[in-house]
Amino acid sequence: MFHSAEPFFRPKTVAIVGASESGGGGWPRAIYENLEFADFPAEVYLVNPRREELWGRKVYPDFASLPAQIDLALTVIPAEFIPDVLKDGADNGLKSALIYAARFGEGGDDVGAKRADQLRDLCDETGLVVCGPNCMGAMSFPSNMLFYPATRIRGLPVGSTGVVFQSGGTFMFWLQRAAERGLGFSYAVSSGNELNLDLADYINFLVDDKDTKMIACMVEGIRRPEAFMEAARRALEAEKPIVMIKVGRSDAGKEAAQSHTGALASDDAILQAVCRKYGVVRCYSLDEMMETCLLLNQRRWPKGPNIGMAGFSGGGKGLFLDYAADEGAVMGRLSDETVALIDPIIDPGLSGQNPIDCGAGIAYRQQDYSLVCKHLAADNGVDIVAMQGQLPTSAEDTTDATIFSNVFDATDKPVMAYVRVSQNVSAAGLEFQKATKVPFVQGLPQAVRAIQGLVKYTEAMNKGVLPLPEASGKKESLEGDAFEALLNDNGLTPPASGFGATAQEAASAAAETGFPVVLKIVSPQASHKTEVGGVALGLEDEASVVAAAEEMTARLKAVDPKAEIEEFLVQEMVSGTEVILGVREDLQFGPFMVVGLGGILVEAVRDVSFRMLPVSPDDAQEMLDELRGKSILGAFRGAAPRDIDALVKAICGLSDIFASHRNHLADLEVNPLIVGAEGEGVRAVDVRPVWR
Amino acid sequence: MFHSAEPFFRPKTVAIVGASESGGGGWPRAIYENLEFADFPAEVYLVNPRREELWGRKVYPDFASLPAQIDLALTVIPAEFIPDVLKDGADNGLKSALIYAARFGEGGDDVGAKRADQLRDLCDETGLVVCGPNCMGAMSFPSNMLFYPATRIRGLPVGSTGVVFQSGGTFMFWLQRAAERGLGFSYAVSSGNELNLDLADYINFLVDDKDTKMIACMVEGIRRPEAFMEAARRALEAEKPIVMIKVGRSDAGKEAAQSHTGALASDDAILQAVCRKYGVVRCYSLDEMMETCLLLNQRRWPKGPNIGMAGFSGGGKGLFLDYAADEGAVMGRLSDETVALIDPIIDPGLSGQNPIDCGAGIAYRQQDYSLVCKHLAADNGVDIVAMQGQLPTSAEDTTDATIFSNVFDATDKPVMAYVRVSQNVSAAGLEFQKATKVPFVQGLPQAVRAIQGLVKYTEAMNKGVLPLPEASGKKESLEGDAFEALLNDNGLTPPASGFGATAQEAASAAAETGFPVVLKIVSPQASHKTEVGGVALGLEDEASVVAAAEEMTARLKAVDPKAEIEEFLVQEMVSGTEVILGVREDLQFGPFMVVGLGGILVEAVRDVSFRMLPVSPDDAQEMLDELRGKSILGAFRGAAPRDIDALVKAICGLSDIFASHRNHLADLEVNPLIVGAEGEGVRAVDVRPVWR
Repeated sequence: MFHSAEPFFRPKTVAIVGASESGGGGWPRAIYENLEFADFPAEVYLVNPRREELWGRKVYPDFASLPAQIDLALTVIPAEFIPDVLKDGADNGLKSALIYAARFGEGGDDVGAKRADQLRDLCDETGLVVCGPNCMGAMSFPSNMLFYPATRIRGLPVGSTGVVFQSGGTFMFWLQRAAERGLGFSYAVSSGNELNLDLADYINFLVDDKDTKMIACMVEGIRRPEAFMEAARRALEAEKPIVMIKVGRSDAGKEAAQSHTGALASDDAILQAVCRKYGVVRCYSLDEMMETCLLLNQRRWPKGPNIGMAGFSGGGKGLFLDYAADEGAVMGRLSDETVALIDPIIDPGLSGQNPIDCGAGIAYRQQDYSLVCKHLAADNGVDIVAMQGQLPTSAEDTTDATIFSNVFDATDKPVMAYVRVSQNVSAAGLEFQKATKVPFVQGLPQAVRAIQGLVKYTEAMNKGVLPLPEASGKKESLEGDAFEALLNDNGLTPPASGFGATAQEAASAAAETGFPVVLKIVSPQASHKTEVGGVALGLEDEASVVAAAEEMTARLKAVDPKAEIEEFLVQEMVSGTEVILGVREDLQFGPFMVVGLGGILVEAVRDVSFRMLPVSPDDAQEMLDELRGKSILGAFRGAAPRDIDALVKAICGLSDIFASHRNHLADLEVNPLIVGAEGEGVRAVDVRPVWR
Repeated sequence: MFHSAEPFFRPKTVAIVGASESGGGGWPRAIYENLEFADFPAEVYLVNPRREELWGRKVYPDFASLPAQIDLALTVIPAEFIPDVLKDGADNGLKSALIYAARFGEGGDDVGAKRADQLRDLCDETGLVVCGPNCMGAMSFPSNMLFYPATRIRGLPVGSTGVVFQSGGTFMFWLQRAAERGLGFSYAVSSGNELNLDLADYINFLVDDKDTKMIACMVEGIRRPEAFMEAARRALEAEKPIVMIKVGRSDAGKEAAQSHTGALASDDAILQAVCRKYGVVRCYSLDEMMETCLLLNQRRWPKGPNIGMAGFSGGGKGLFLDYAADEGAVMGRLSDETVALIDPIIDPGLSGQNPIDCGAGIAYRQQDYSLVCKHLAADNGVDIVAMQGQLPTSAEDTTDATIFSNVFDATDKPVMAYVRVSQNVSAAGLEFQKATKVPFVQGLPQAVRAIQGLVKYTEAMNKGVLPLPEASGKKESLEGDAFEALLNDNGLTPPASGFGATAQEAASAAAETGFPVVLKIVSPQASHKTEVGGVALGLEDEASVVAAAEEMTARLKAVDPKAEIEEFLVQEMVSGTEVILGVREDLQFGPFMVVGLGGILVEAVRDVSFRMLPVSPDDAQEMLDELRGKSILGAFRGAAPRDIDALVKAICGLSDIFASHRNHLADLEVNPLIVGAEGEGVRAVDVRPVWR
C-alpha cells in the first residue's frame, strides 16, 4: 500500500543532476552549498553532460558513468529532460529522485501529462520513488540534509515534528514562523504534485521514524484515501498526532445524488468525519496549526475535557469563556476544598472557582499566581491547565519562568500559557518559553481551539479505530419480510403498513392497517415524493384514501405523462419529531452516516452531523449533540422529551445494517424517522435502499 | 447626554493625590516620573497631608492649600478616602479625577457600592467628571501626558487611533502589541467601572478630537445605550470608524419573553444589529481588532465589496478563498482586457483572472508582481486590492518596498498586504511597512475579516443612520378593522377569517370563509397554540370544525382547568413557506426586528436574522440573504420560487407599523407569515400585538 520514502529521506549517496554554477536560477548551487554547509552528510556527486568540473569536483555526464550507485537524484533540469535522465538513473540502480520542475500536467497541459505518465510507468517498472514534481524540496533534519534550493533555510531547529506540505509556496514560510515560536523538525517535505510518493507515504514514513512524534500537514487533496486512512490509523496507534490544515474546504459536494444523504454530504463534511475517526486534528488556519502543534508537542494527554483556567485579567477571562462556548469546550468545576485553598490567595472580592481571575494584584506576587495554578492542576475536576502568560519582550522583564515550570512539574496534566494577543517572540523569549516547560499559545481563540484539538485527539486515541464489520450480508435480507425483520431487530421499527396496486386496493389495505393512515405513491418518477404531491397525510376513511390516490396519480401524470405507478403504500399515521438518517458509501473514504433534524428543512438549513462507520452509541449521542436544533429532541415547547435511547439504537442499527450489507448497498436512507416521546420508540416511516 | 472628558484628557493643572516615594505600590512615583519624562506637559502639584516635600517639590496637605485650581486629580489613595478628598477637591474647583483604586461596589460589596453612590452624587452636584474607578489610567499622546502607573509604556507612538478599554488588564498589552505592528495613538483610556465618564463619553470626546481618526474599544458592557448610539452616530458621520471587541458574547438573552422574538433575541444579537446600524466594526478577537485597525487606518473607503487578490502561493490563494466563502466576501471579476494584460506577466499555465496566483517564478521578478497588482487595482471589477506579502525579518531580505507603494500610488482604492502566518515584526520590518504605504495584515482569516469590516463600515457610512419615524400612531389603528386595513396597507395581508364564540359558531364562520379552514383556539392560557394542541389544519366541513373545537377545548382544560376560552378563530387555509417576523422594543437599544424561517423549528435551529428599526428594503433583502436556510425561499425541491418582493414589502411594512405605533406596542409578531410562490403574495396568518 505504501512506497518507501526511506531512500529519499535517508540517502547515503546523492547526485545533483543539472549541476551548474549559475544555471537553474542558482538552485543547483544553493542545493550544493546547503550540503556543503552540513559537511556533506551524504556522498555527493555532480551530473551534467556539458561540464567536467565544478566546485572542485568531477562532474559526470550521466548515471552510467558515476562511480557509485545513487540513492537520491536531485534533478535541477527542465521537465522535458527528466524522464530520459531518470530512465538512465533507474537503469543504473537509482533508488529515488526529487523533481523540483513543474510542467507535469498541472493546469491541464497535455504534453506535461504525457510526461507524468511516462514517469509513473518508470516508477512502476523499476521501483524508483519520486518526490514532486512541482515542489520546493525537502529536509532531513536528523542527518542535516537540506534538499532545498535556498540557503536562508539553514538553522531551522531539529525536533520531533514531521512536516508534509502540498503547497510549496507556504512550506518554508510556515517552517520559519513555527521555528520562531519554538517548534523543531524531524523531516519536512514539499510534496508538490505527488506523482509517486504522496501524503500517505510520507505520513507512513514518519510514523515509523523514531525522531518524529507529531506530523503537521497542509493538504490540498488526498490522492489515495485508503492509504491515507491506513497511515492515519498507524499514526493514531503510534501516539503521533496528525495536525492538518485543508485547503479548499468550500468545494461543494460533487455527487449529484438522488438521496438526501448524498446531497447533504460535501467533500469537506466527509473529510471532517474521516479526521474525527482517525484522530486527525484539523486546524482552521496556518496560525492555529502552529499553536496546536506547540500544545500537542508537550505530549501530555488529558484524562478528560475539563479546562482549568487562571489569569489576572477579567477581560481575558471573559473572552476565553466566549471562545470556549463557541467551541463547545468544557470548563472544569473545582472542589470546595480547592476553592478554599485558592480564595485567600487571590484579590479580595474575586471568586476562587474556575475559571479564575486572580485580579491585577497578583502580578506583584508571582509565586502566589503559580500556587493558584498548582491548586487548579491538583483538582480532580481539571484535566488541562491554561495559565495567562506572555513572553518577555525586553531585558527588564522580571517574570520568573518558574511560575510556569513549577506548575508543570507539580502535575502530569497538560499545562499551557495563553497569550491574549499575538506578540513578537525574541530569541530571549524563546529561551524563556523553554525554561517554563510550557508552550505559550498566541491568541485566545487559537488557545481554546488548540485545547479542543488536544482533547479530541486524546479521545480518538483512547477509543482507537473501530473496525468495520465484515460485509457478508445477503441481499435477500434486504428484501420483503426479511428486511422488515432486520430493521425491527436493529431498532428501526417500521410503522404498520400495507400495499395496494390500485386506489381501491390501497383503501382496503388501509382498512387493515387501521385509520388514520398516510398514503404514498410508489413510482420511479417520484423519488422525492413531496415534490410531486405524492404523499397524503391523516386519511380517515377508505373514501379519502381512494380520492387521494387518484389525485396523486393525476398530479404525477401531469408532470410526466409516462410516469409509471408501481403501487400505493399505506402506513400507520405516526406522529413525533422528524429525523433523517442516511448511510452512504463515499467513493473515496467509504461508508458514512448523516443524521439531521426536520423534514423538508433539513437540506435548506443543513443542520446535520456526519460520522464514518461504524457508529457506536457514544458516536450517535455526540452526533445528536452536534445538531444546532438539538433542543427539539428535549422538552421543547411543551412536548415531552423524545426517546433518545431508541434514536441512538436506531442510528447504530442503521450503521450495522449498512456495514454488514455494503456489498449490496450504495445508500440506505430513513426519511423520516419519527421519534416519539420517551418510551414510545421510533418509527422508520420510509426506508429507501439504493443498490450498488 | 454626554459628560465632557475635556478636563480629563487635556488638563493644564494636575495634582497627584497620595504622592509618596514608595507608597501605593510605587504607583505615585511611576506616575510622577512619566510626567517628568515628558517634561511636565501640565503644571504638576503633589498632595499628601503626611508630607511636606517630595522629589524637590512642595507637597500640599489638601486642595484648599494648593496655589492653583486643578483640572485633574490623579488619586493614588485607598478607596475609603476618595469621596472626602474629591469633595474637598470639588469645593476648590477641581474639574476631573482619575481613580485607580477598586472597591467601589464591584463584585457585590455593599460598603463599596455606597462609596460609589456618594461619588456619583458628588459628580452630579458639582459637575466633577471622574475616570474609573478600578482602572489602569490613561494617556493623552498629543500632549505627551501618561497618567499610567508604570514607566514601561513610554515610547508608544503618537497616531490617530483613540482607544477605550473597559478591561484594564488587557489595555496596555494590546496597546504595546498594536504599536509593534504600526498603530499610533491619540488618546487611550482604561475606563474601569465607568462610575461617571463612560464609553459613550469617551467616544464622543474622540469624535470631536482633531487628532483621532479611528476608535478601538474593548467593551464588557454598555452602560448608557442611548448615549452610546448617539456617540456612534456622530462617529459615523465624522468618518471615524469604531472598531470593537465585545466580551461576554455568550450571555444568553435575559428577557424570558412570551413572544418568539424575545426568546430568539440574545443580548448579543441585538448588539450585533446595533453595530450594523451604526457601522461599528465588531471583531472576534483582540488580534483581529489590531489587524482591522491597521487596515481601516489607511482611510480609503472602497466603492464596493469586490476583492482583487494576487499572490504567488496556490495554497495561500486556496485558503484565502475558503475564508472569503466563510465570511461571504466577494471576489471581483476582471475584464477580459485586464486578464489579457496580466496573463503574459505571470507563470505559464496559470490564470490571469482574479484571484491571481502569479506562480513561484514571480518572486524573482518583483516589479512584475507589482505590475500585476497595478492592473488588478485599475480594473473596475475590483474595489479592494489584497497582495500577498511578508515583512523582511533579516537584513539580507531583498524585497523592495516599492512593489507595494507603486500599487498604492497608482490607485485610490484600499491596498493591503496579507501575511499568511503571523510573523515577528522588527523595527526594520515596521520601517519597511511604512515605506510600502500599505498595512501588512497578519493571518489570512483576519485579513479577510478586516476587509469585510472595511466593506461593511463603508456601506454603513454611505447609507447613514436612517431616522425612526415619529411614534405618533393611534392605538385605535391597532384594533379591529382598522388594524386589518393597516396590515393590508403594509403588505401584511391577513387570510380570510372569521370568529365564533362556540364550536358551533366557529363552524358557521368557517362556512362563510370557505373550506378548507384552519381552526385556532383563543385563550390567554394558550399563547403558544401548538404546544397545547390549539391549532387544527385542513378542516373540510362544519362537522370537523365542531369536533376539532371541542377536542382542543378539552385538551386545554386538561392542562389548566381554569383556562378561559375567549373564542375560536377560523381562517382560510393557506399554503406556502412559513416565515416568522417579529418586532420588539429592546429595553436598552430600542426597536429591532427578527426574521426567521420555519415553524416550530425556528427556535430550535435559531436560523434568524436581526436588524434595528427602521428596516429598509435593502436591509430586508440582506436579512433574508443571511438566513442559513435561505434556499428554501428559492426554487427548492421542485417548488416555485417564493414571492420575495411581497416578503420584503411585508418586512418593511411591519417595521413601519411598529415604528410609528411603538408608543403603544411592546412587541408585534407575525407567526407564521406564509410566503406564496412568485406573484401569490404573502398571508399574515397570525399577528400578535403585545401592548406596552
